[in-house]
Amino acid sequence: MVRVREVCVLGLGLIGGSVLRAATAAGYSGWGSAGSAEDVAAAAAEGFDVETSIGAAIRRAARAEAIIVLAVPLTAVDSVLEEVHAHAPHCLLTDVVSVKQPVADRVARVAPATRFIGSHPMAGATSSSWAASSAGLFDGAAWVLCIEQETDLAGWGEVARLALDAGAHVVPASAAAHDAAVARISHLPHVLAGLLASVGSGGGPLALSLAAGSFTDGTRVAGTRPELTQAMTEGNRDALLPVLDEALGLLGAARAALASTGSLAATINAGHEGAQALARGRSARRNAVHIDLSVAESAKALLALGEQGGMIVELDGMIATGLVPQAR
Amino acid sequence: MVRVREVCVLGLGLIGGSVLRAATAAGYSGWGSAGSAEDVAAAAAEGFDVETSIGAAIRRAARAEAIIVLAVPLTAVDSVLEEVHAHAPHCLLTDVVSVKQPVADRVARVAPATRFIGSHPMAGATSSSWAASSAGLFDGAAWVLCIEQETDLAGWGEVARLALDAGAHVVPASAAAHDAAVARISHLPHVLAGLLASVGSGGGPLALSLAAGSFTDGTRVAGTRPELTQAMTEGNRDALLPVLDEALGLLGAARAALASTGSLAATINAGHEGAQALARGRSARRNAVHIDLSVAESAKALLALGEQGGMIVELDGMIATGLVPQAR
Repeated sequence: MVRVREVCVLGLGLIGGSVLRAATAAGYSGWGSAGSAEDVAAAAAEGFDVETSIGAAIRRAARAEAIIVLAVPLTAVDSVLEEVHAHAPHCLLTDVVSVKQPVADRVARVAPATRFIGSHPMAGATSSSWAASSAGLFDGAAWVLCIEQETDLAGWGEVARLALDAGAHVVPASAAAHDAAVARISHLPHVLAGLLASVGSGGGPLALSLAAGSFTDGTRVAGTRPELTQAMTEGNRDALLPVLDEALGLLGAARAALASTGSLAATINAGHEGAQALARGRSARRNAVHIDLSVAESAKALLALGEQGGMIVELDGMIATGLVPQAR
Repeated sequence: MVRVREVCVLGLGLIGGSVLRAATAAGYSGWGSAGSAEDVAAAAAEGFDVETSIGAAIRRAARAEAIIVLAVPLTAVDSVLEEVHAHAPHCLLTDVVSVKQPVADRVARVAPATRFIGSHPMAGATSSSWAASSAGLFDGAAWVLCIEQETDLAGWGEVARLALDAGAHVVPASAAAHDAAVARISHLPHVLAGLLASVGSGGGPLALSLAAGSFTDGTRVAGTRPELTQAMTEGNRDALLPVLDEALGLLGAARAALASTGSLAATINAGHEGAQALARGRSARRNAVHIDLSVAESAKALLALGEQGGMIVELDGMIATGLVPQAR
């Protein structure tokens, strides 16, 4: 395996810009381009290596056999994939879009010959331009790297190395498992925050003047730019619908219990247990495990590690080291 | 009007303890008692003036014509009110329970001759013992003081002075308006936080390992002791039910829109507008208004001030000074 040291970033907003900054800071030779002339100009003004067209950046990636990182909004993915297919059809390709199965479907349709490894760094999204990007955005963050039974492990390892070099911890998961998980822990919170802000402000100035911590915390992400929240949640429609149904079921059950018995015990106790599971997971001691990526059946071991809440924290040659929460 | 300088606090947990500390720090002569022998002993150990029985504390209040502050859980209100009715039937009485109409109903039934002014300081509730109390708990906090058209304004002013002396800002509101407002901005957030924690942890260790800011913020109050959340939300059942219905309607509409049109625009835009209304209210310039409490029709002016998101910040004799957000 040749250690990839060159990276081409397409899209230079918050995430793409941060990937380019973090990769070059880690010693990669990196360049980029974007649909936004403003982001391209801002990156150039800071001395970053930018091409004025996405096509030119891709052609250069084909010559250099660089990793291509797709960092454009989901709505722009198809048109950029067409250029990838035209100019670098066999490249090692990853993306950083917040939903994974829809991107994988587009790649299979538009750029089927690429070595594609979908990914999603779990890092901030309340702003979206190059100006908001930073080399440290991924420090200690979880970075999901998609893997299925048939995934090419050598390519997976190369993208994992980029994520680790950018400061992140790598969480292996299937595209479907990723989309189901983020529907629960990111997209539902955004829908509920919006709903709570609506109901709260429906109480008028008196209600808002009494709002304290529980309301402020519960509505914080409702302040995100609406188009970003829309793109993220609507892009994950198939995984989000059953989660909304689950939430509707629980809220309806709470309403019915309060009306009929006067008790919210079931709702509140289950929520308290969930909050404690989160706290336990965060404070759990972790065991180190080692997985050899040159062994074909390692995809299964990586998926199992992710399902247990584990993360890859190091990659030495083809030996990945992960940390898995200790059962207790 | 005689300026009341003596205060009797019944219940010495987080709120009652903090009232006793803040009042004595402000120069009041204050004493207390509580059902919890542990809280009584802890207060005595710090040199506070405590009676070993609630009955003794009430009899002393009757002799001194002190304000009595009822700071026990809603479930204990009836039995303490019986003692108030027995030993100090005509006292000036307030309470600091988190729901107001249910307490007003109990007072009308059990201690109907008291001069009762319900109140609710909007201050922390994740802990509940004397050990967690502090003299600064109410600094800058909103403290709702109930007022109806028929409320005795002299008594209202005496309780308002106590709240102001404790460091709070006084929000005048009817009991019904208070209960409806806190259902929206405090009790619904607690129900949604529990629901979100349940749905999130239902995704298992993988989902929890990906949880970032939106989930952490949205579930924070699900970590509150379940019995405290239950007492607060269940005690406000009548006002909370229509708010849960409103939330169910909005969540169902979001689900239907996503399923049929693929768009969450209505939900997300309304939420964003709500979040901005909250931010606008907090940053608004405020106009000073003066209300003379010795004038009978001032109850109407106080209610209007609260409905506009205003607060009383000073009381000089019978002249209350409020700040009202400037329209823009």
